[in-house]
Amino acid sequence: MIIVMKPEASSVEIKEVCSKLETLSFSCHVIHGVNQSVIGVVGTITDELLEQAQLWPKVEKAIRVGKPYKLVSRECQPEGSVVKVGSVSIGKEKVVIAGPCAVETEDQMLKTAEAVKKAGANMLRGGAFKPRTSPYAFQGLKTKGLELLSEAGRAYGLPVVTEVVDPRDVEIVAQYADMLQIGARNMQNFSLLKEVGLTRKPILLKRGLSSTIQEWLMAAEYILAEGNSQVVLCERGIRTFEPWTRNTLDISAIALAKETSHLPVLADPSHASGKRSLVEPLAKAALAAGADGLIIEVHPNPDGALSDGPQSLNFEEFERLMARLNLGEGV
Amino acid sequence: MIIVMKPEASSVEIKEVCSKLETLSFSCHVIHGVNQSVIGVVGTITDELLEQAQLWPKVEKAIRVGKPYKLVSRECQPEGSVVKVGSVSIGKEKVVIAGPCAVETEDQMLKTAEAVKKAGANMLRGGAFKPRTSPYAFQGLKTKGLELLSEAGRAYGLPVVTEVVDPRDVEIVAQYADMLQIGARNMQNFSLLKEVGLTRKPILLKRGLSSTIQEWLMAAEYILAEGNSQVVLCERGIRTFEPWTRNTLDISAIALAKETSHLPVLADPSHASGKRSLVEPLAKAALAAGADGLIIEVHPNPDGALSDGPQSLNFEEFERLMARLNLGEGV
Amino acid sequence: MIIVMKPEASSVEIKEVCSKLETLSFSCHVIHGVNQSVIGVVGTITDELLEQAQLWPKVEKAIRVGKPYKLVSRECQPEGSVVKVGSVSIGKEKVVIAGPCAVETEDQMLKTAEAVKKAGANMLRGGAFKPRTSPYAFQGLKTKGLELLSEAGRAYGLPVVTEVVDPRDVEIVAQYADMLQIGARNMQNFSLLKEVGLTRKPILLKRGLSSTIQEWLMAAEYILAEGNSQVVLCERGIRTFEPWTRNTLDISAIALAKETSHLPVLADPSHASGKRSLVEPLAKAALAAGADGLIIEVHPNPDGALSDGPQSLNFEEFERLMARLNLGEGV
Amino acid sequence: MIIVMKPEASSVEIKEVCSKLETLSFSCHVIHGVNQSVIGVVGTITDELLEQAQLWPKVEKAIRVGKPYKLVSRECQPEGSVVKVGSVSIGKEKVVIAGPCAVETEDQMLKTAEAVKKAGANMLRGGAFKPRTSPYAFQGLKTKGLELLSEAGRAYGLPVVTEVVDPRDVEIVAQYADMLQIGARNMQNFSLLKEVGLTRKPILLKRGLSSTIQEWLMAAEYILAEGNSQVVLCERGIRTFEPWTRNTLDISAIALAKETSHLPVLADPSHASGKRSLVEPLAKAALAAGADGLIIEVHPNPDGALSDGPQSLNFEEFERLMARLNLGEGV
Repeated sequence: MIIVMKPEASSVEIKEVCSKLETLSFSCHVIHGVNQSVIGVVGTITDELLEQAQLWPKVEKAIRVGKPYKLVSRECQPEGSVVKVGSVSIGKEKVVIAGPCAVETEDQMLKTAEAVKKAGANMLRGGAFKPRTSPYAFQGLKTKGLELLSEAGRAYGLPVVTEVVDPRDVEIVAQYADMLQIGARNMQNFSLLKEVGLTRKPILLKRGLSSTIQEWLMAAEYILAEGNSQVVLCERGIRTFEPWTRNTLDISAIALAKETSHLPVLADPSHASGKRSLVEPLAKAALAAGADGLIIEVHPNPDGALSDGPQSLNFEEFERLMARLNLGEGV
Repeated sequence: MIIVMKPEASSVEIKEVCSKLETLSFSCHVIHGVNQSVIGVVGTITDELLEQAQLWPKVEKAIRVGKPYKLVSRECQPEGSVVKVGSVSIGKEKVVIAGPCAVETEDQMLKTAEAVKKAGANMLRGGAFKPRTSPYAFQGLKTKGLELLSEAGRAYGLPVVTEVVDPRDVEIVAQYADMLQIGARNMQNFSLLKEVGLTRKPILLKRGLSSTIQEWLMAAEYILAEGNSQVVLCERGIRTFEPWTRNTLDISAIALAKETSHLPVLADPSHASGKRSLVEPLAKAALAAGADGLIIEVHPNPDGALSDGPQSLNFEEFERLMARLNLGEGV
Repeated sequence: MIIVMKPEASSVEIKEVCSKLETLSFSCHVIHGVNQSVIGVVGTITDELLEQAQLWPKVEKAIRVGKPYKLVSRECQPEGSVVKVGSVSIGKEKVVIAGPCAVETEDQMLKTAEAVKKAGANMLRGGAFKPRTSPYAFQGLKTKGLELLSEAGRAYGLPVVTEVVDPRDVEIVAQYADMLQIGARNMQNFSLLKEVGLTRKPILLKRGLSSTIQEWLMAAEYILAEGNSQVVLCERGIRTFEPWTRNTLDISAIALAKETSHLPVLADPSHASGKRSLVEPLAKAALAAGADGLIIEVHPNPDGALSDGPQSLNFEEFERLMARLNLGEGV
Repeated sequence: MIIVMKPEASSVEIKEVCSKLETLSFSCHVIHGVNQSVIGVVGTITDELLEQAQLWPKVEKAIRVGKPYKLVSRECQPEGSVVKVGSVSIGKEKVVIAGPCAVETEDQMLKTAEAVKKAGANMLRGGAFKPRTSPYAFQGLKTKGLELLSEAGRAYGLPVVTEVVDPRDVEIVAQYADMLQIGARNMQNFSLLKEVGLTRKPILLKRGLSSTIQEWLMAAEYILAEGNSQVVLCERGIRTFEPWTRNTLDISAIALAKETSHLPVLADPSHASGKRSLVEPLAKAALAAGADGLIIEVHPNPDGALSDGPQSLNFEEFERLMARLNLGEGV
């Protein structure tokens, strides 16, 4: 930690800060600059100490030198993690997860599973518990939805991923799903993060729509700290002032998350944009920037979907997209 | 709902959109503009229909005319709500809730309760379950914290409010607290919203740090839709690009929430800024803009606090602030 | 400047960084931390050096210790500046500047000047050169507008302020106006800042809608650096994700600008919100937060205005507002 | 234009709005909805009318149906524009513009021109007039810089582009440069836009760091409206809350600008990120999303650069990047 003293701090006041820290077993090195002094503090700094130090008399600011995350960092594990979901190895091969936003009917799920399998997808997605902005919107089929998703995945040999929104549902969702998704709105639902950290299921952790990359890594750290290291990150767009897209896909975050962390990183071009016409350019861009794969909304009949129609592709559009992504034997 | 057709839409294509809607029992009125046509659709529009309509052939956009919230709106209830918490009437008198970010010790809580009572506060706050960005930071005393908070409140005749972060904890927190707080990070934790909606406790609903005012009202709507109408809104700053404050207090949101909704609105100048020196100007500004009260962090010894020290006031600072706010007999 | 070395930096590599800096006459103090080392660099650091240092081998980051602004800082001048515009002393008394967004006719200006004078305003505003998002929107009456504004101000003893948007117009605008306004879109138009810095006219410097407080102070620094210290800052809202207001008035920025700088600070509640109903709560809030005054749009007939009608008050509304602001003999 | 009336508007009040509009020669069509009525207004709507209508009694809001830009739209010109700069055809072939942020010396420019030409770049960039946040930072070599840039371009057969920041400099810059750049900070410097619109030089128009895509297109419209249709757009990152990158490259904006407008679109991965390690992933992503080319900072010795070192590539890094971009005969 570096403590920057205010220009008017006297040498006595600087010494008082050092005494306080030395009592706590830190060692201090004072550097007298042209206008103000700084104190280099050596030792393991907690968040609490960092915050408190800002309040001490004549302290201008306290700056953390190290990083607040540990287990998720590249420094902790230099080689990239591979997260296995059934036969799929995320982080090793380029992966495409496809399916509808919400599970609606058996027919919808079986047809979608067949179509996305044929087009080359590796995993099936579908929401059974839907977090919706309005209490009056369709909230998902719940357990019935889990059954339909699981059944469709098994029928076509596709591992399935679905969102869990309540710590009390983790057990039941884990019975049906091969991978659990933490949605953007729950990225800092720490009770839920701890609960999925206690399972041994792979976790797909979406970035919160106004979370910094560091907060996203800290959310992953919660899961790893509970003992579950099977975490895959997913960039899905952040909230900005631009009204023409639902969110702004933060393409740099994909590259930075991979640079900073050993966890695999997927991108969700469907939710990021909220627009069908943008799915293809964003999907290509995400792969070009180094994403380990994509999660894409596909629906047999998007303009009759019960949720998130505007960004869903139909089967033909998805097949064309997969051909253009040209993932080759990679997938 | 207004459907704007693309300029190239033919009259046959416009008719097809109308037929589709008329089959669903809506009535349609087409207006042919200079470059493009619009269709006025009369009937009760669901979120799903609004989304789907955007996807129909030659549709440029679909615009909702009405508002997605009902129970929280001024139109539903023109006079302002008064939420009673013990002897305190939020929405009727100007209210000040004060106390530490986190409950730490019995001594801390009793001293704080005494000091804030003496300075004129109406309610006591203190966190027992703390949502923290880092899994390695202090997470609160949990049930022990609830006991200490409740005891201190009773000792000085102050109703208490504390945050609940997990639907499984709602019952225990409701046993100890007079009012339950939903924190900013959980504003769209819909499981939690529904759970507190099933209690008959007053709820303090903080605005999410990247939530629009409409999303905030929709979160309140979740609670009212479950049958609990005792909801108080709290503006606590939004995330922007400005790095000199932790968040940007959205002062307009206070006035707009009161204009649009009948629910009382408080402001949290401590969390909004993250800076002790800003608490006073922001507190005054919030009251001037029409807030029904304030929630302010007070700690016996802020530079030794286990959480959020930089924005906490000590007893003397709080007493001086209360004198300057000049709430008079209003409190 | 503090240089944080990467954890893997060897002691030879740390020495190389120090040698480089010592050649440039800086003195270096190395502190070896638990995981990584930091170098305290003493001497006057330029922006260029700060940027370059980030690129040197094994450097993780370089952090500036001091502040990049000088002349505008409270440290440079502890007491607040008073900027005189005619008989008005901004920074000493609370000031209200009122008038239409755009100068339209002689009758409009004379009536407005009379009405705002009567209601207690101290200065008259009106745009002759209008920066408009669309090339097809009304761009202002230019020199004719300056004449009408100046005439109306003289008729009622009100100093006048108007925006200048082009360095080539500074001379002509300075002939007619008592104070020159730099608009939000031109806050980083450095050519224009330098040009008005060469005049001896008071300058009203609006904050850019996506500028940090520090960038705003740096823009003021440009003007002071040219020799003109008569600068008044004006907070007018920043761009955020919230769609219900045109901009988000950053109420904290008012307090922070006054804390950090000796320059007076006004607020513009009309532009910040873009909504007539918000002018009063925002005006009160800005004064409560410590603003030295307000700039408010007033128009004889807002729903017939050629520019920015939705946020303008009519005479009766302005008079009522002034009564409620209760500025007393302050004005 | 669609006017949405408030729910409480009476039929008399609705008729009054219609009468007002019919007097102005618009035709009105009223649709009575379940809760409120809307009026479809047919005719050519100005910005002024749209704003005024919002203020009329009992009007809830007024919504524009058409688009505010004309000349830049795909509807105006369905096929993509090709902008010729010397022998380079932007919009037809994939183009790479490379060079230093600031022109510093003859040697620097000649070496850079040679290196980027050899690596496959099509055009040379370099700043002679530098907009800098601080008045104390290097402001560019001005006319001397223009000479050095032009000389280096001619020596290696590379057309040159450089920024112009002041309308008074347009003439001199146009004498030396093959293409004029409008920087992000000047995107809404309308005097400058009009001035470059009067030249017959190709213009590179960077997106403002907090400008919406629509505002960016409107800025281009200013140039086209003056008669200069040789405009190339350039996405360079927007300001968001994320602190790990200087700006957030808005990858969707590239696809949307091409979808909505016929103008070519470049991307600037160097400025967007401010980080050398991100230049390659962002460059690849931008091309994958459909960008017509890139503008990349290259400097012989980035850690000695006078401006923007952290994001500049050295010659070897640039050569490697070009090889990996695999532009083939495309360039």
